[in-house]
Amino acid sequence: MSDTRGLMPGAEEANESLRRESPALWSALSDLGRRIAFPRDIPFQAGQARGKRFNATIGQITDGAGAPLPHAPIAAGLSGLGETARRRALLYSPVEGIPEVRSAWRTWQRREVDAGVVSSLPIATVGLTHGLSLVADLFGGPGPAGTGRPVVAPKPYWGNYRPTFAVRTGARMIEPEIYEDGRWTPEAIGAAIDAAGEQAGAGEAIVVIVNLPSNPGGYSPPPAERDRLLATLRSAAEARPLVVVCDDAYAGLVYEPGVPTRSIFWDLATGASDCPNLVPVKVDGATKELGFFGGRVGFLTFALPAEGEAAKAMESKVKCLTRAALGSPVAVSQVLIAEDLESGRAGEEFESVRSELASRWTALTEALGSLDPDRVRPLPSNAGCFSLLELADDLDADEIRRRLLDDHDTGVVSVGKRYLRIAFCSVARDDLPELVRRIDAAVRSV
Amino acid sequence: MSDTRGLMPGAEEANESLRRESPALWSALSDLGRRIAFPRDIPFQAGQARGKRFNATIGQITDGAGAPLPHAPIAAGLSGLGETARRRALLYSPVEGIPEVRSAWRTWQRREVDAGVVSSLPIATVGLTHGLSLVADLFGGPGPAGTGRPVVAPKPYWGNYRPTFAVRTGARMIEPEIYEDGRWTPEAIGAAIDAAGEQAGAGEAIVVIVNLPSNPGGYSPPPAERDRLLATLRSAAEARPLVVVCDDAYAGLVYEPGVPTRSIFWDLATGASDCPNLVPVKVDGATKELGFFGGRVGFLTFALPAEGEAAKAMESKVKCLTRAALGSPVAVSQVLIAEDLESGRAGEEFESVRSELASRWTALTEALGSLDPDRVRPLPSNAGCFSLLELADDLDADEIRRRLLDDHDTGVVSVGKRYLRIAFCSVARDDLPELVRRIDAAVRSV
Repeated sequence: MSDTRGLMPGAEEANESLRRESPALWSALSDLGRRIAFPRDIPFQAGQARGKRFNATIGQITDGAGAPLPHAPIAAGLSGLGETARRRALLYSPVEGIPEVRSAWRTWQRREVDAGVVSSLPIATVGLTHGLSLVADLFGGPGPAGTGRPVVAPKPYWGNYRPTFAVRTGARMIEPEIYEDGRWTPEAIGAAIDAAGEQAGAGEAIVVIVNLPSNPGGYSPPPAERDRLLATLRSAAEARPLVVVCDDAYAGLVYEPGVPTRSIFWDLATGASDCPNLVPVKVDGATKELGFFGGRVGFLTFALPAEGEAAKAMESKVKCLTRAALGSPVAVSQVLIAEDLESGRAGEEFESVRSELASRWTALTEALGSLDPDRVRPLPSNAGCFSLLELADDLDADEIRRRLLDDHDTGVVSVGKRYLRIAFCSVARDDLPELVRRIDAAVRSV
Repeated sequence: MSDTRGLMPGAEEANESLRRESPALWSALSDLGRRIAFPRDIPFQAGQARGKRFNATIGQITDGAGAPLPHAPIAAGLSGLGETARRRALLYSPVEGIPEVRSAWRTWQRREVDAGVVSSLPIATVGLTHGLSLVADLFGGPGPAGTGRPVVAPKPYWGNYRPTFAVRTGARMIEPEIYEDGRWTPEAIGAAIDAAGEQAGAGEAIVVIVNLPSNPGGYSPPPAERDRLLATLRSAAEARPLVVVCDDAYAGLVYEPGVPTRSIFWDLATGASDCPNLVPVKVDGATKELGFFGGRVGFLTFALPAEGEAAKAMESKVKCLTRAALGSPVAVSQVLIAEDLESGRAGEEFESVRSELASRWTALTEALGSLDPDRVRPLPSNAGCFSLLELADDLDADEIRRRLLDDHDTGVVSVGKRYLRIAFCSVARDDLPELVRRIDAAVRSV
């Protein structure tokens, strides 16, 4: 939105906290991001009335003592939950998420992180895409010059970033090629930021999306490449505020020994004090990490002290957006992931899924060795859910995809003209060699 | 967004269908609404690969044969569901919703409607607020003149309409007073549309929100008033496209004999052929109708033939927005409401909740008779979850609210300066007389 409408009540205080505690974050906020704060309407007033003898604030149908009046078939579907959990699943979640679930997710996401690294209490979102769309609203938009806030997304990237950032908010996608002659090349990101920065003007903020393990790449950098990525980001952040959106959808799903499993967000958060222009934002959630695709639980975390005023200000802004677009996040799914996280078993359950995927990755990597590398080049893959193939210049990815559908009873995803993505996360290990044979046959048939 | 960026692939075909089959709807679409269509990326390609021997399209972790690999504590929480339902609950929903759930909701929402009345297959949303935010994106925005598409919301209205329509999209709220000397006066809506229309220019579309039973009013009009509302809307739609957003959150929760329980959407849909400028849109869902507050399942329905090209075009546009902002709707909650709707028991379960609320409404109405009508006037109430009190000019609603909190251990919601809202849906019947006594005491203490 290009015209600046008035500030919502509370926005001035929130903005003042941000200006004071996190000036780079403040200056990177979109026009919308600056105008908003959680309104003092019903959820706010209901919060003040919590625990009162009579609470007639909230439009939630209860027995008058806080318990739901569920339809029996819905309650029966949730009979696997204890009474307290079932009640919670049926009633509204707070807009920022159920407190215990937020704490439990914080413990989970920080399981490889030193206590000294700062991060805000995660805010619940409706799946990871909602987290990304919140980031797009907060930091995207048409930018001060009206030509679109630059959003650097290394290519090939998950196609949904464009609708989420550019179509919805008017931000402008900048798309450096991340593979140079088949090698993952983080310096391409820094060069793209610098080039976009020259165009955007001195000091204008830039957003960059870092998705590792990557979709569609299935890649996470080993230590030396990781250091190169951090160096290029830190160097780019010398000239301007740099919002680094860590899309950690596939966090921890790493198969190659020696490749760090920890999100790069934590490295950025650790070094934030040396590099005040860096604004790391973490988008993660239960979809892939806990295998709960149908639940739609994600989280948004800032590299800000959990108890500080800046974290409070960002929480107020995010709550405004969630309330305006969705009401509140999903209580039933939050309750179900709390069952997992509080059981003490989430770690071993995660490892069981990871090792199943690792065995598929091994089988796929071996099978891909049989392809003619002059026609189909497997790009480096060691993590996540996918493997990415780069086709020779005279091949068209969508044509190969259609041949696989029509002649080989096989579905893969084409990414642009040059790439095919294999989702080994949804194919049995023993099927992978045959899947690769069919890709080979489809390529040979052109 | 003020600058018109390019059309997404598929948008031109969708727009052509709308221009042909529903020109008023077409001309009411926002700039964003015109530019979008469901992208042909992963969900589109995954749709084409459904049923293939090898399906390596989608980034969903399965056993390779389409079954999820859930964490045991999450699966245990859903053990009340049958095996097929549990699998569905754990996996991604299609972006438009699970087909059987959409059909079941269509049957439910049309249970008092003649077969000849047209309506599209409902599209699943993440709760009703998401449905409203989709409508805001599709029909709101800054408008062709850049001064804000007029959105008429009769006052007092649910406070969240402003962030959803105005703050997010740049639309402009128009707020006629719906109560004139304590009487519900639908002609105020028509007058506000006409006045906004004169300002907006000839033929420019206007949006009006009709929320009946109302929040905070707790009111649904009896037949004669309903006819007056329909007449004023039809008359206003003579001069310009009029998008009538029926916020049917409280559909069917009516307590006074003789007051129709059916949504006004169906009357508008019935007469649509006589009044081609009327564009009725229905936002409804399971939150209040099935008492599943924590589930976040809503639906968006257009007054378009279910099998027509226009319905298909709108579905494509809505799917683009849902995918860009949220990924997909909540599978687990859709599965749970399917359990209810397909059990054949939803009707009696609904009636059991309705009759409980009816008995509270009777008790509250009686207790409100004891208030001094010169200080606190109960506005007409016969439906929904609330009762609304209008305060004398020298009283301040927020001050009374604070006195109730501080001195009477009681929470109610203040709406603007003049109104107090009592949510009798969350107070036990036997507590309502005492609640009213405390309100009386707080008012007398000023």
